[in-house]
Amino acid sequence: MKAYKELSKAELETLRTQLQKQYEDAKGKGLQLNMSRGKPSVAQLDMTMGIMDVIDSKSVLKSESGDDCRNYGVMEGLAEARKLMGDIMGVPEDQVIVCGNASLSIMYDTVSRAMTHGILGNTPWDRLDTVKFLCPVPGYDRHFAITEHFGIEMINVPMHQDGPDMDMIEKLVSADDSIKGIWCVPKYSNPQGVVYSDKTVERFAALKPAAKDFRIFWDNAYIVHHLYEEKQIEIPDILSACVKYGNEDMVYEFCSTSKISFAGAGIAAVASSEANLSEMKKSMTIQTIGYDKLNQLRHVKYFKNLDGIKDQMKKHAEILRPKFEAVINELDKELSGLGIGSWMKPYGGYFISFDAMEGCAKNIVAKCKEAGVVLTGAGATYPYKKDPWDSNIRIAPSFPTPEDMAAATEIFVLCVKLASVEKLLEEAA
Amino acid sequence: MKAYKELSKAELETLRTQLQKQYEDAKGKGLQLNMSRGKPSVAQLDMTMGIMDVIDSKSVLKSESGDDCRNYGVMEGLAEARKLMGDIMGVPEDQVIVCGNASLSIMYDTVSRAMTHGILGNTPWDRLDTVKFLCPVPGYDRHFAITEHFGIEMINVPMHQDGPDMDMIEKLVSADDSIKGIWCVPKYSNPQGVVYSDKTVERFAALKPAAKDFRIFWDNAYIVHHLYEEKQIEIPDILSACVKYGNEDMVYEFCSTSKISFAGAGIAAVASSEANLSEMKKSMTIQTIGYDKLNQLRHVKYFKNLDGIKDQMKKHAEILRPKFEAVINELDKELSGLGIGSWMKPYGGYFISFDAMEGCAKNIVAKCKEAGVVLTGAGATYPYKKDPWDSNIRIAPSFPTPEDMAAATEIFVLCVKLASVEKLLEEAA
Repeated sequence: MKAYKELSKAELETLRTQLQKQYEDAKGKGLQLNMSRGKPSVAQLDMTMGIMDVIDSKSVLKSESGDDCRNYGVMEGLAEARKLMGDIMGVPEDQVIVCGNASLSIMYDTVSRAMTHGILGNTPWDRLDTVKFLCPVPGYDRHFAITEHFGIEMINVPMHQDGPDMDMIEKLVSADDSIKGIWCVPKYSNPQGVVYSDKTVERFAALKPAAKDFRIFWDNAYIVHHLYEEKQIEIPDILSACVKYGNEDMVYEFCSTSKISFAGAGIAAVASSEANLSEMKKSMTIQTIGYDKLNQLRHVKYFKNLDGIKDQMKKHAEILRPKFEAVINELDKELSGLGIGSWMKPYGGYFISFDAMEGCAKNIVAKCKEAGVVLTGAGATYPYKKDPWDSNIRIAPSFPTPEDMAAATEIFVLCVKLASVEKLLEEAA
Repeated sequence: MKAYKELSKAELETLRTQLQKQYEDAKGKGLQLNMSRGKPSVAQLDMTMGIMDVIDSKSVLKSESGDDCRNYGVMEGLAEARKLMGDIMGVPEDQVIVCGNASLSIMYDTVSRAMTHGILGNTPWDRLDTVKFLCPVPGYDRHFAITEHFGIEMINVPMHQDGPDMDMIEKLVSADDSIKGIWCVPKYSNPQGVVYSDKTVERFAALKPAAKDFRIFWDNAYIVHHLYEEKQIEIPDILSACVKYGNEDMVYEFCSTSKISFAGAGIAAVASSEANLSEMKKSMTIQTIGYDKLNQLRHVKYFKNLDGIKDQMKKHAEILRPKFEAVINELDKELSGLGIGSWMKPYGGYFISFDAMEGCAKNIVAKCKEAGVVLTGAGATYPYKKDPWDSNIRIAPSFPTPEDMAAATEIFVLCVKLASVEKLLEEAA
């Protein structure tokens, strides 16, 4: 197949007519498909139902150290839950606090606390004229929503195959002390599935930020979320890497079991230096008497250890893989060589990122919608929901069946083609 | 028995010698008792174990409206959980949001949000020179800790038998627009067990605050926590009372099942006006994708409705009552008529408040500690932990057995007597 850009105007017009015909047919089918929901499928949730039985009314609901998990207290989380989450992140349990069901809340609270109380004695961010965060793009909309909510200025940093543009990051953070943070999903990034290279992690650890209270928000949301057993990519532990460079306080690392156990009823954790954790605990002890320890116990009893987590992730992968492949195969088959889009095959995580021709993403999303296929809004993967190139689209394959994903992707590629032809004809006009 | 103040110096000295002898004997017993822990006892937690079985791996984990409780979403809480918590508070479910396991976190977040974002378009509190809260005293240390944490200036308001001093409150809030809030525990207050009268609630609803963003933090922590079936005191619903006076946005009401189901694994809720809730949701939607709905479902299935809650509270009362009575009986028996302390018999809640002679509380707490009886630190019931009269002591009878409470109270009254005699002799010197 010839690249669209090499087609003559007449060829493009013929193509448009064909595609429009196909599109009208597709619309006629009255499909109702959804590629926007980055949440586990019913099959994945069903697979984990055993977790509901590991504790019941006959159980002794005590932690290993004898804490009554039903009562108040143990704010930093059960020791065994801290160990489990620490093992997932590859950090010692005393560097871990286990909280409630959402790592997003820990991130929000961490930014909120920096706003009102500052970090380790530095000026609270809300007393500064300008606070900026670096945002590798495309990225996770809910990260950007937090910084936007607190009026933090966001600066786009392009993502490459091995992580964000480190030259740009090094230059910016060393020159500007109003840059206080960066959002990172270092493994199987949302939405591209990029895994930061060892070199990238090393360069993060070695940053020399102008701001003493610059923090890396290291959201290791997909740390064990591999799709292929033979292709499990591991990255260095950022916390110990930072210690080597005298940057031990520079990172807050987050993870959760939302996509390991239940999306709505998992447990979440933060790992950081002793100084950072000690500061967090000062606020947490005002905010709560303790998180839900019964759910922590439930997770520890069900998964037991890191091997239990790994077994679980293999089962998730078996359910997820065909859905990812349904999308990737259709993209490969229908769009390869046309020069109207690019995509990466992810080896883990929850998303596929598609870059359309500049100026086409909104049109594609709108066309899909009209044909009964819901996509995440174009621009969602950028701060302020503004994709400067109107190009990136996030595809979430996890929730529908593989068959539905294939059907939805058929509509998607058709809309990509049609929107691209329309764009090229517009440019030719 | 003669009041201590009427004793001569010689009589006091003789008494001191006797009491010192008894105190040394008591110390020799090597007791280890604790009257400081305001948490449910093991018997109360055991009584609720059935809640662990209402959902298991065979259950359909869906809400009545079909939401999969295991997955993301339904941020405002399951409709049936909102109804249950609404029924507890006496407000319609659409005025309720159900969150995680701690109402304290909702209060903290509410203050934090007011600091960074302001309330309904008013200036964020952290941009104001001064923000003040009224604090009925004695009160709940964790309330005061929140306002202190955010640098909010706290003003003591005396508590009376029918609630806080409303004359003072009306005067202050109408004159000073830097007064932005007040902490209230309207029913079985912590620590006194005071129940606000209908008139007090009415006067709260009718306040004319100078600050448009003045809010009543109405912590209805003990709303169904009666100790005597024949003496269940009810108070008017503050939210509907406020509507009558055009103050519909003036109250945030909080409650939780921490002392209904499990202290560490209950569910918590906030009730307020449509405008307030809508503003809260704007932040919450940034902070979380949803709270733990499985635990909400567990509570709904276990308690079913308000009658289920009431039955549960009767069982709690049966366990708690003998402990409260062990304290009250000992206080009545040993201290009545001595003029060295006052206390109130509470009809609900979790605490007994004791007012010693001025300048004696710290000494009593220290003496008790030396004799193996741990009390909440003197001053804890006041903002900044500063009791201006060094008089108030909070007693928490819930955790130990009635026998241990009786034994601990014996030590307590002995220390009260000894400290009072010491004080009187000091004054006489």
